[in-house]
Amino acid sequence: MAEYFKDIPKIKYEGVNSTNPLSFKYYNPDEVVMGKTMREQLKFALSWWHTMGGDGTDMFGCGTTDKTWGEAAPEARAKKKVDVAFEIMDKLSIDYFCFHDRDLSPEYGDLGTTNAKLAEVVDYIAEKMAADPTKKLLWGTAKCFDHPRYMHGAGTSPSADVFAYAAAQIKNAVDATIKLGGKGYVFWGGREGYETLLNTNMGLELDNMARLMKLTVDYARSKGYTGDFYIEPKPKEPTKHQYDFDTATVLGFLRKYGLDKDFKMNIEANHATLAQHTFQHELRVARDNGVFGSIDANQGDPLLGWDTDQFPTNAYDATLCMYEVLKAGGFTNGGLNFDAKARRGSYTMEDIFLSYIAGMDTFALGLKAAAKIIEDGRLDKFVDDRYASWTTGIGADIIAGKADMESLEKYAVEKGEVTDSLSSGRQEYLESVLNQIMFNL
Amino acid sequence: MAEYFKDIPKIKYEGVNSTNPLSFKYYNPDEVVMGKTMREQLKFALSWWHTMGGDGTDMFGCGTTDKTWGEAAPEARAKKKVDVAFEIMDKLSIDYFCFHDRDLSPEYGDLGTTNAKLAEVVDYIAEKMAADPTKKLLWGTAKCFDHPRYMHGAGTSPSADVFAYAAAQIKNAVDATIKLGGKGYVFWGGREGYETLLNTNMGLELDNMARLMKLTVDYARSKGYTGDFYIEPKPKEPTKHQYDFDTATVLGFLRKYGLDKDFKMNIEANHATLAQHTFQHELRVARDNGVFGSIDANQGDPLLGWDTDQFPTNAYDATLCMYEVLKAGGFTNGGLNFDAKARRGSYTMEDIFLSYIAGMDTFALGLKAAAKIIEDGRLDKFVDDRYASWTTGIGADIIAGKADMESLEKYAVEKGEVTDSLSSGRQEYLESVLNQIMFNL
Amino acid sequence: MAEYFKDIPKIKYEGVNSTNPLSFKYYNPDEVVMGKTMREQLKFALSWWHTMGGDGTDMFGCGTTDKTWGEAAPEARAKKKVDVAFEIMDKLSIDYFCFHDRDLSPEYGDLGTTNAKLAEVVDYIAEKMAADPTKKLLWGTAKCFDHPRYMHGAGTSPSADVFAYAAAQIKNAVDATIKLGGKGYVFWGGREGYETLLNTNMGLELDNMARLMKLTVDYARSKGYTGDFYIEPKPKEPTKHQYDFDTATVLGFLRKYGLDKDFKMNIEANHATLAQHTFQHELRVARDNGVFGSIDANQGDPLLGWDTDQFPTNAYDATLCMYEVLKAGGFTNGGLNFDAKARRGSYTMEDIFLSYIAGMDTFALGLKAAAKIIEDGRLDKFVDDRYASWTTGIGADIIAGKADMESLEKYAVEKGEVTDSLSSGRQEYLESVLNQIMFNL
Amino acid sequence: MAEYFKDIPKIKYEGVNSTNPLSFKYYNPDEVVMGKTMREQLKFALSWWHTMGGDGTDMFGCGTTDKTWGEAAPEARAKKKVDVAFEIMDKLSIDYFCFHDRDLSPEYGDLGTTNAKLAEVVDYIAEKMAADPTKKLLWGTAKCFDHPRYMHGAGTSPSADVFAYAAAQIKNAVDATIKLGGKGYVFWGGREGYETLLNTNMGLELDNMARLMKLTVDYARSKGYTGDFYIEPKPKEPTKHQYDFDTATVLGFLRKYGLDKDFKMNIEANHATLAQHTFQHELRVARDNGVFGSIDANQGDPLLGWDTDQFPTNAYDATLCMYEVLKAGGFTNGGLNFDAKARRGSYTMEDIFLSYIAGMDTFALGLKAAAKIIEDGRLDKFVDDRYASWTTGIGADIIAGKADMESLEKYAVEKGEVTDSLSSGRQEYLESVLNQIMFNL
Repeated sequence: MAEYFKDIPKIKYEGVNSTNPLSFKYYNPDEVVMGKTMREQLKFALSWWHTMGGDGTDMFGCGTTDKTWGEAAPEARAKKKVDVAFEIMDKLSIDYFCFHDRDLSPEYGDLGTTNAKLAEVVDYIAEKMAADPTKKLLWGTAKCFDHPRYMHGAGTSPSADVFAYAAAQIKNAVDATIKLGGKGYVFWGGREGYETLLNTNMGLELDNMARLMKLTVDYARSKGYTGDFYIEPKPKEPTKHQYDFDTATVLGFLRKYGLDKDFKMNIEANHATLAQHTFQHELRVARDNGVFGSIDANQGDPLLGWDTDQFPTNAYDATLCMYEVLKAGGFTNGGLNFDAKARRGSYTMEDIFLSYIAGMDTFALGLKAAAKIIEDGRLDKFVDDRYASWTTGIGADIIAGKADMESLEKYAVEKGEVTDSLSSGRQEYLESVLNQIMFNL
Repeated sequence: MAEYFKDIPKIKYEGVNSTNPLSFKYYNPDEVVMGKTMREQLKFALSWWHTMGGDGTDMFGCGTTDKTWGEAAPEARAKKKVDVAFEIMDKLSIDYFCFHDRDLSPEYGDLGTTNAKLAEVVDYIAEKMAADPTKKLLWGTAKCFDHPRYMHGAGTSPSADVFAYAAAQIKNAVDATIKLGGKGYVFWGGREGYETLLNTNMGLELDNMARLMKLTVDYARSKGYTGDFYIEPKPKEPTKHQYDFDTATVLGFLRKYGLDKDFKMNIEANHATLAQHTFQHELRVARDNGVFGSIDANQGDPLLGWDTDQFPTNAYDATLCMYEVLKAGGFTNGGLNFDAKARRGSYTMEDIFLSYIAGMDTFALGLKAAAKIIEDGRLDKFVDDRYASWTTGIGADIIAGKADMESLEKYAVEKGEVTDSLSSGRQEYLESVLNQIMFNL
Repeated sequence: MAEYFKDIPKIKYEGVNSTNPLSFKYYNPDEVVMGKTMREQLKFALSWWHTMGGDGTDMFGCGTTDKTWGEAAPEARAKKKVDVAFEIMDKLSIDYFCFHDRDLSPEYGDLGTTNAKLAEVVDYIAEKMAADPTKKLLWGTAKCFDHPRYMHGAGTSPSADVFAYAAAQIKNAVDATIKLGGKGYVFWGGREGYETLLNTNMGLELDNMARLMKLTVDYARSKGYTGDFYIEPKPKEPTKHQYDFDTATVLGFLRKYGLDKDFKMNIEANHATLAQHTFQHELRVARDNGVFGSIDANQGDPLLGWDTDQFPTNAYDATLCMYEVLKAGGFTNGGLNFDAKARRGSYTMEDIFLSYIAGMDTFALGLKAAAKIIEDGRLDKFVDDRYASWTTGIGADIIAGKADMESLEKYAVEKGEVTDSLSSGRQEYLESVLNQIMFNL
Repeated sequence: MAEYFKDIPKIKYEGVNSTNPLSFKYYNPDEVVMGKTMREQLKFALSWWHTMGGDGTDMFGCGTTDKTWGEAAPEARAKKKVDVAFEIMDKLSIDYFCFHDRDLSPEYGDLGTTNAKLAEVVDYIAEKMAADPTKKLLWGTAKCFDHPRYMHGAGTSPSADVFAYAAAQIKNAVDATIKLGGKGYVFWGGREGYETLLNTNMGLELDNMARLMKLTVDYARSKGYTGDFYIEPKPKEPTKHQYDFDTATVLGFLRKYGLDKDFKMNIEANHATLAQHTFQHELRVARDNGVFGSIDANQGDPLLGWDTDQFPTNAYDATLCMYEVLKAGGFTNGGLNFDAKARRGSYTMEDIFLSYIAGMDTFALGLKAAAKIIEDGRLDKFVDDRYASWTTGIGADIIAGKADMESLEKYAVEKGEVTDSLSSGRQEYLESVLNQIMFNL
């Protein structure tokens, strides 16, 4: 296969003192952190959408980068994208990839042809994977939001015909995922929401969304799929209100419709902040509820109100993210995908590599810092000590179900004032400990 | 009983052309709208917190209004507040009231005394209610957030002793609610949240919150209470993250802990917008999930990021709110409470009445507009037509569970392109219809 | 000229009881309000950008409407757009239009050809205007933000060559404006801002922006242009920080560079709210500083963080906007342009008319309400009374410059406590008066 | 003087490996960074408001910390606060302090007495300073926002009597500042803004604000004051709209009223983010316009919409702040004041020290990182290279005023397409360089 990026060498770990832009400063694939190599702990994935197709177009201007990869015909371009993606993965020491169906292969007028052409590209990828078994599919998904037919939603469309069309598209995306050995299938409800309640039957739309998910699970399981299904929460954009607002909202939905056994979360950092949550918060909610799955590792600008999908470079966020991942026992089926795009002004081919390096180094730094937090133990011990009253006495009784309102009133009246049972929250001190650990790796 | 507001007459409905500030322009208590009087449809309630106790203090300045009601001793002031509150209700033709326990009667050092003193005030209110049976309690609640003992939460405190104290306080607030014939008991988790995850065991805190709610339900039911329990969602403030973020979040919580049968929502407009939702959205989510309960009718400033608790004067919000209420069949146990405070600069006694008039007139206007929307029928018909495809053919099959992924694929491939099955969302038109109806009452 | 919208009749005023969607309920062009016809007071303008070119594309999906107008070749399409635009204006009783150069005529490879082709379209428009003298140009502008050459800014580009290119483009847009008799030329700094300070020399960029504006003013004045120059503030989007953040920021800029005599503001409602200001606030700042110019009348969603550019349907905003316009003495060179796009789901040709009708009716309603506020007089009198202390005594002395710190200290010490010199701000009452007037037109 | 914090030793620098909470990890007062000691570069200041008076009260609960310092009488407490503040400064190696007049000494009924009592406390401080010449006043200010008389503003009050009262108060605060050798006097317009435009004459209010500032400058200069006057911008809170929205707004105001020669900025981090700016942005705007003065070093929570005034612990913000300070040539009259309060739950006396340590260490870390950025040179060189085209050829001509629109058109038409004159913005790379430097000190 002809090399596409002839000027870009394989990116090597050169350590923190290197001034070579095309080197890793922190990501050392084979370095062991908490019992696994960085490569295993981080499970980085390349995403087809932004990396292979994103050309810098925004609402106020056309593309700044050519992502046709030198091929005009759709079939040829689709295969060329596979070749180039594998070259990028190889040069960056990335083992995983993930895809939206239409980014692998576009629409070809009628659905039958579109499906067939997609299957051809999937076969081509399967060949590439056979030739290099280190390359694995993290997850697949169907792009049910870009075509005008989905303008009012896919699973939540007012049109039953559109629902059927979406189901057919998703079936093929599931087939592709299974074929490529993927352990994850993602639902991100791009247009599953509303623009105005004045024209919306929200109850019916959500019932239908649940129906589509149930049909998908039943189908995939019938084909032997044992991986996870993920929902990727987002509160808004493109629609005014996206139904999968955040993890807590999705948990309520899954429990209502009996879907909570099959679904986990694919948490995206920028979606978390759009919902007014920290990235860590969303991960913690998922972890506490047993639905931590996979991660879209990007970052937003906290002062902007839309999805900027920036490559992640904030070490605090990466550290607290990896802390949650390690506390969850590490990734199982999931991994770290960059749902991120280089800024429109970072338009050169070299920027693809520089932006991945920036993101990967940040998460490598975060992994090391998170591991050190756990090893240091001060933060975890602080929390344990703070809740110690729940392990004995009245606390243990309450948890054991041995207390009722009358007994608690009796206890409280006899006990007297209890303000002194509290200790300081020590937020400032804990933040300074975090700094001390992070800046002294 | 001596009249307190000697210069304020009973507020009368004088219609839309009156320039008398102390008159209603829209609220005509006995006017029938959709089969009930305005008084019955709107079920306005005075709230003890802001109206009887709020003195204009904010984070940058001390109070501007004297709300001691001329009494220095706490017992005397508590009773005087009852007298004055009943005078206000009477002059404003308001039938309901609601309270936080500590706004009825403050703390007196030890819990036993505090409870006894609260019971005295409750008895006094009961006497007043006996003397005027039109006055009813909408709901009661316990103020488990102002005292330092609750600085880290009440039901979610790291201290089991504080949990016990809160339980004891809540038990007495429930007793007061039952004694006064209240049909609602509210949980607003003032400090039930976290400031930083660095010091927080979120999983344990939420388990404990559920425990406290279960204990409360069991106790109240054992005392014969048949009313509703409400959770009042709020996303943040005072804590960085409030656990009862919004209605969807609370639904997930209730379902997880099996509390969904006993709890409904008390929706506050300003809390909705802080969660980035419209007021109508929160009401719709509650209605669709069968947990619509009661309403804190205030408004926030959409350009400010904190709870401003302004008296509601936006007729759009009031109209869409009352549309949801009417569609839900009207209030049952719930009603419209003003969790609102006159601006710090609206500091005179007259402003109490002017601000209630502003809020009540706005909701009366909203009620009339909502009724007219339903009678007009254009908006409802638009929605029905838009989803017609779900009542026959493939839509009906999907709902009936007769379709699977394979059959849907077959249908979609044979059907061909389905974009034409869509109709325009017509948001602009629908908004202009809304204007046409609202401005032509 | 062949009629394009054969199914759309000329839109007539049918009044508030009409249920004909294709009729005006409030906009009655020849109705006189405060001494002028609605047509003269409102000076509505069609905008080329969204109306003639916007096809519903967003960041998550392709266009839903065909805006090629049946012509594939760029020259033919450009002329067809002129024909169609004039038909729309005619059917909607709109007298004005405004344009971005590239929406009139696209780029043709080299700048010389592009300029020549633009001039041809301008000539064609001039012919149409000669045939129908009621049609006038409100303002012109240059689209210096869509092409990749402007990715880092136009007047603020790090590349001097790009600055030169932008100057050349603006010169031709100014020529077009003059040719068509426009009385306004707009600078909206689409990419004039930064993405990160890490790569930005902000001081140089702003100096250069001022240079470009000065060059433009000098050139236009040398060609006899006597109209206004407008800056259209926007705080962010597409860039992280737009230099023309809001009116106050622009005033500081203009004063620094001595440009405050030639420039006025083109205020956009949605840009105001993105800057955390009300629409009225921006208009008031402009009015108070003598730089009120023209208006982009759209609306944003206060719960969303990007420019939604919705057609304006909020009657409160329209009323308070028109109040400021009337108080400013009405429009002189400026007018009301709809920088608004029908929602992506409002994709039919009919929606073009329905959305303009929605916007125009809202502003007609706002005009009537604003006029009634002024005639009613209660609000204006309240403000006059509130500041009465500045017209006599110490207030008049301070304004006259007769006081100094020592004399004021002496006055204050002798005067004693002054809290009683204040009156209530009465926000709730004033808002209820506003409602009373607006809903009783 | 009796030691107040008997359990708190003088805080020593113990380096980054110490686990002693009561030690500095980064702040090493005598360590030299870029030619000055940390103590000189950072010029930390204790603030009287939050540190000596803030007791944890918030809108939902009463104080959690006792800040009466064991003294009931106001005179005795005021002096005790002085003693304790000097002990804190001494133990934390802080040289500067700053005050609001009423935090030094409260109101005593009439203004004459209040002024006299304030003067006594000022004398007492002067004695302490004479005994320890290392202690210096950074700035003084007047608290013209807490008392009800200022509910509608001080300099912008509708009441001329309130304006006079504020002037008298400010005169005495200026006197105190001069007496204590302060080199800064701050205007933070706590209530200088509006709640609703419905009751506001914004033009008059701003004219009056300018009058008050002019009077103050004239008075202070007449007394020989040679220090700076600062305006501290804030966009909102407590009022809906604060007139001093941000630095750019203030610059426009100062230029309008001819005050730009006497005033500089006191930039607060949390105010910057409430205005949707980064801290660095506000500093850069001030630096570029020659009005960089002093800093309120705190931080907000980017996901919350009010002023949280947290102690600063974000090393990115501190680094980029100190980068701007170093680029501005370091502080002259200004310094780093902590306008920060320990969280309500950080309620112990020890938390005062822990929170200052957290903030001081963060800025020491930031100073070291900023110095290393400058020494490293990669970031500065990137910017220089990026704008190189402005130093020669057409760029130099434009700056020299040698170009006009015609010559630029000629140049651009001949030049042809100029996209290639651009280089990549490289945001991701620059952010990774920043990380590399910061995490490798």
